[in-house]
Amino acid sequence: MDIAIPLFDDITALDAIGPYEVLSRLPGARVRFVAIEPGPKKTDKRLTLVADEPLSAVPRPEIIMVPGGFGTRALMTPNPLLDWIRAAHQTSQWTTSVCTGSLLLGAAGLLRGLEATTHWTVLDQLAALGARPTSRRVVEQGKIVTAAGVSAGIDMALTLAARIAGDEVAQAIQLGIEYDPQPPFDAGSPDKAPRAIVESLRERTRARLETSAGSAR
Amino acid sequence: MDIAIPLFDDITALDAIGPYEVLSRLPGARVRFVAIEPGPKKTDKRLTLVADEPLSAVPRPEIIMVPGGFGTRALMTPNPLLDWIRAAHQTSQWTTSVCTGSLLLGAAGLLRGLEATTHWTVLDQLAALGARPTSRRVVEQGKIVTAAGVSAGIDMALTLAARIAGDEVAQAIQLGIEYDPQPPFDAGSPDKAPRAIVESLRERTRARLETSAGSAR
Repeated sequence: MDIAIPLFDDITALDAIGPYEVLSRLPGARVRFVAIEPGPKKTDKRLTLVADEPLSAVPRPEIIMVPGGFGTRALMTPNPLLDWIRAAHQTSQWTTSVCTGSLLLGAAGLLRGLEATTHWTVLDQLAALGARPTSRRVVEQGKIVTAAGVSAGIDMALTLAARIAGDEVAQAIQLGIEYDPQPPFDAGSPDKAPRAIVESLRERTRARLETSAGSAR
Repeated sequence: MDIAIPLFDDITALDAIGPYEVLSRLPGARVRFVAIEPGPKKTDKRLTLVADEPLSAVPRPEIIMVPGGFGTRALMTPNPLLDWIRAAHQTSQWTTSVCTGSLLLGAAGLLRGLEATTHWTVLDQLAALGARPTSRRVVEQGKIVTAAGVSAGIDMALTLAARIAGDEVAQAIQLGIEYDPQPPFDAGSPDKAPRAIVESLRERTRARLETSAGSAR
């Protein structure tokens, strides 16, 4: 079972690594890190992840898992990654995303008329891509599964693991990564965090998005 | 503020990336991925992370964050990483670990007489290193903070972020990574998972640890 995770510059590392850590533990799983051009990709905070193969090496993965990050901005107009997503989706068993990865699914034309989610700061942008934005953490629509921001990919991947291999395998994976969350605060969603923090972060994200829109891919 | 994260082959990616995603968002943070020999490091499941610098480039980081993984086995006897951990700890503000990273802190002699935690499957091994094993998810002992298995590093890093920069900054980071956990099961600790799954995973981990003990670093 090939699980293809496309990488690109200015990705958010945890978007990719959360689902990777879960899905790579599925029986028979083979994770393939792919890119328009293989090689080192710089995440948004100084970490380098390596894409081992070109997109063309994995044309028909069983699972597509598209991570997000500010780097998605430069990939919203026609390009080989969107072409690959569109083509691979024809034969995939599951087509999934984390965070702003869903904007790429949308730009590839896969979300028209479907419910979908993304990072809470950009939820409204899904509508322009023909999707129906929803703030649920994991949104399943047939074989398309989108997750909310960054860390939501872990919950999405466990949900997917259960669909693919059954509840017991998913529970064993959860136990293996000791995912018994105990955050010191209850501030992980805009409904729960203090209002001032929500507004400040929304402003900062929008400002950064505007500068990223023109950056190279 | 330098945050040094040592990488090595056969690391568990999420051990490093969970805290990285949190700590890299602290004001003034500069994450430095270091290794005995810089370059690409293969995680335990086909992902390549890049260590940009040798250990010697970051002798006095403000924060040391040691991830775990089966690769820790080959690093338990005297080697340059343990020497670096021991020396860097002299001047660090915080010395931290995730999962079996605490076994390296222990092998470096830092945990004698202290409470500490690690992945639940190997908790008993901390005692042989002079520590007092505890199954709390995040264990603070002065400036040494150890976290339980894999995903616990996210909770540890948020705790640390609050200590360093205050509750509001930590909450803003939690909101930024939308860490509002909603796992589909409640099976993330050996106290909560079905007994058969716990025993099966314990057996498999022990078998794998025995084969890893002889592997190269």
